[in-house]
Amino acid sequence: MSTTPTDLAAFLPQALAQVRARNPLVQCLTNTVVSNFTANVLYAVGSTPAMVDIPDEAGPFAGIASAVVINLGTPHKEQRTAMVEAARAAASAGTPWVLDAFTIGPLPVRTALAQQLLELQPTVVRGTASEIIAVAGDGAAAGGQDADASPEILQAAQETARTLARRTSGVIAVSGPPDFVTDGTRDSRIANGDALLTQVAGGGGGALAAVMAAFAVVDENRLATTVAAVTVYSVAAEMAARQHSRPGSFAVAFLDTLAALTEQDLLERAALS
Amino acid sequence: MSTTPTDLAAFLPQALAQVRARNPLVQCLTNTVVSNFTANVLYAVGSTPAMVDIPDEAGPFAGIASAVVINLGTPHKEQRTAMVEAARAAASAGTPWVLDAFTIGPLPVRTALAQQLLELQPTVVRGTASEIIAVAGDGAAAGGQDADASPEILQAAQETARTLARRTSGVIAVSGPPDFVTDGTRDSRIANGDALLTQVAGGGGGALAAVMAAFAVVDENRLATTVAAVTVYSVAAEMAARQHSRPGSFAVAFLDTLAALTEQDLLERAALS
Amino acid sequence: MSTTPTDLAAFLPQALAQVRARNPLVQCLTNTVVSNFTANVLYAVGSTPAMVDIPDEAGPFAGIASAVVINLGTPHKEQRTAMVEAARAAASAGTPWVLDAFTIGPLPVRTALAQQLLELQPTVVRGTASEIIAVAGDGAAAGGQDADASPEILQAAQETARTLARRTSGVIAVSGPPDFVTDGTRDSRIANGDALLTQVAGGGGGALAAVMAAFAVVDENRLATTVAAVTVYSVAAEMAARQHSRPGSFAVAFLDTLAALTEQDLLERAALS
Repeated sequence: MSTTPTDLAAFLPQALAQVRARNPLVQCLTNTVVSNFTANVLYAVGSTPAMVDIPDEAGPFAGIASAVVINLGTPHKEQRTAMVEAARAAASAGTPWVLDAFTIGPLPVRTALAQQLLELQPTVVRGTASEIIAVAGDGAAAGGQDADASPEILQAAQETARTLARRTSGVIAVSGPPDFVTDGTRDSRIANGDALLTQVAGGGGGALAAVMAAFAVVDENRLATTVAAVTVYSVAAEMAARQHSRPGSFAVAFLDTLAALTEQDLLERAALS
Repeated sequence: MSTTPTDLAAFLPQALAQVRARNPLVQCLTNTVVSNFTANVLYAVGSTPAMVDIPDEAGPFAGIASAVVINLGTPHKEQRTAMVEAARAAASAGTPWVLDAFTIGPLPVRTALAQQLLELQPTVVRGTASEIIAVAGDGAAAGGQDADASPEILQAAQETARTLARRTSGVIAVSGPPDFVTDGTRDSRIANGDALLTQVAGGGGGALAAVMAAFAVVDENRLATTVAAVTVYSVAAEMAARQHSRPGSFAVAFLDTLAALTEQDLLERAALS
Repeated sequence: MSTTPTDLAAFLPQALAQVRARNPLVQCLTNTVVSNFTANVLYAVGSTPAMVDIPDEAGPFAGIASAVVINLGTPHKEQRTAMVEAARAAASAGTPWVLDAFTIGPLPVRTALAQQLLELQPTVVRGTASEIIAVAGDGAAAGGQDADASPEILQAAQETARTLARRTSGVIAVSGPPDFVTDGTRDSRIANGDALLTQVAGGGGGALAAVMAAFAVVDENRLATTVAAVTVYSVAAEMAARQHSRPGSFAVAFLDTLAALTEQDLLERAALS
């Protein structure tokens, strides 16, 4: 597959249809705040979540699962052990896995863990601009919460992302707007989404990382699958935000919209460049 | 109480009224993905949840609680200790307790724990067909997620459930459709519910197991109370699914419907055989 | 600021505007059942949640955060260590922090922990009547769940709260109705809210304690900021309950209403005495 914006856009309906047809089993090692929302988002896109995050199970399960997502939001000790175990098993089995660099930077335990996990060749690393800069070791960033979207930091993060993608032989996704995805040689930008997403716990990134894992199952071209995941997620968000401008009903509508998203919705709205 | 379908149906309104009147305090040792939804479902049926799942508290609290539910979805080490402590205390105090065999089978830690807990005479064991087969030790099953509803597996699970019920002197509930409940000598089938439940994290079983615990408080006939719990839950689901075909709004409507369920709803819709 | 009911009412719009303008970063060490709802409530009032609850991170982060909330609902061992670390760091840095005495009383581990935390001068302690009595060491109370609102217990708890406020040099908030807030010399009562809040996991208190932390950032007068937090929260609840009488849709509407609450809503509805 070539990866012009046109090609990437043409892939979107197929990617969503494939996820729905194959119903990937996504192993989640994620934080306790977003685990419920993440699971519901995974169901809504047509996959099945499985939170298997204890030692001696996380590794074996990563061999059974279709994909794995690791989010470092509340990494207590046993879960940290399980994360390394799962990432190792995924890397060894060729199971795609996504590292969500959530809140990396100012916090020492998770930052060290993220850098250890980075050595295990994540298929995709997702984060805000400052999180990506921090996980790459390019200096301490101001720290997460998706609030760090100044043009200068976004620019710096894109440069870091390209370098990091080459180093990990993977794909790096930096949240926007616009969202930025790179495999180190080719970039893509997605100008969909809505700020309301960042007012829902897990909406800003945690659930999206899980969707990236589900989509990584359907094609070897992870630039394309990651762009598809971001676009599906973001188009659903902007459609839901049109109907509901407040966070409680927006979150409900977002799940509804994801579950009912059509090929037409994607083709009409995807804003790739 | 006799347990013909007619008798079981006649018991439904009384069981629900009793739960609402007595407001059972249900101790939950459950997984982090479904704990919030489970608590909200317990409130909606008229009981009060209490997540007490640490060692040195779980046991004493099982003596205070009206009932206990144990779900093995994210069983980190301290919680495993607390689960054994709570089950022991419940068994010793005569407090009814429900074991949800969620994701038992392919995962070694929780499967061993489930088999240990099984020795402590759970009042009810709930699971999918493959989970019930696995917890009984009748061979490794394909594993959870309520996806294993082939007629052959359902048939095998029903046989296993009857044997297991006699072994534990308890009730075994196998998710369907139709749902199947047995005490080893008498069976009941409930043909209510909606597939949307399995698209909501915790909807497919985790919250239902907690409702079984709440209902177990109102009568010594646990075949009848378990059938009542399944029917109340499933009738509410099918009523909510009529109004809302998408998962986000369905989940909200399910809670609303549970809270407002009437005697008439149950008598008109319960499909017991 | 004087603290007559009129003064406190006049402060409400300003307090809410300040929270929205300053977007306080609230570190949450809370229970796994309510963490998602708590985070969504914090977003809805205009602050940003951050669940940082592991040792070696909780302390350093309490120096970065605008405020800290500690809820003892599911205090596994690592989280207990992190709680003490965060409270110590907050006390030392002058970061306001709120202790939610949730389920204190009959449970030994968390009750001992609460009493240890009490020595670290919480800015605000929140609880039901029996929880406040228990945390103060004034005898074992019947235990949480917001069900203990008999006039006699409420009366006793108010007396205890005044004494406790003087002992901790902080503010004590006892849930009602009416809610009661005291700094040991001055009392305030808030007669807003709706019983539906107690049918939503986290609604009865867990999320409110986090809102108290967010509001504590905007003024040194913590009697006034705590009254403002309770009033904002309770006015939103009663407005949502007017539109939605069932718990699922009420919870959604509550988040929507919090996010859209106006100065006018507060001035028209606040029932302070």
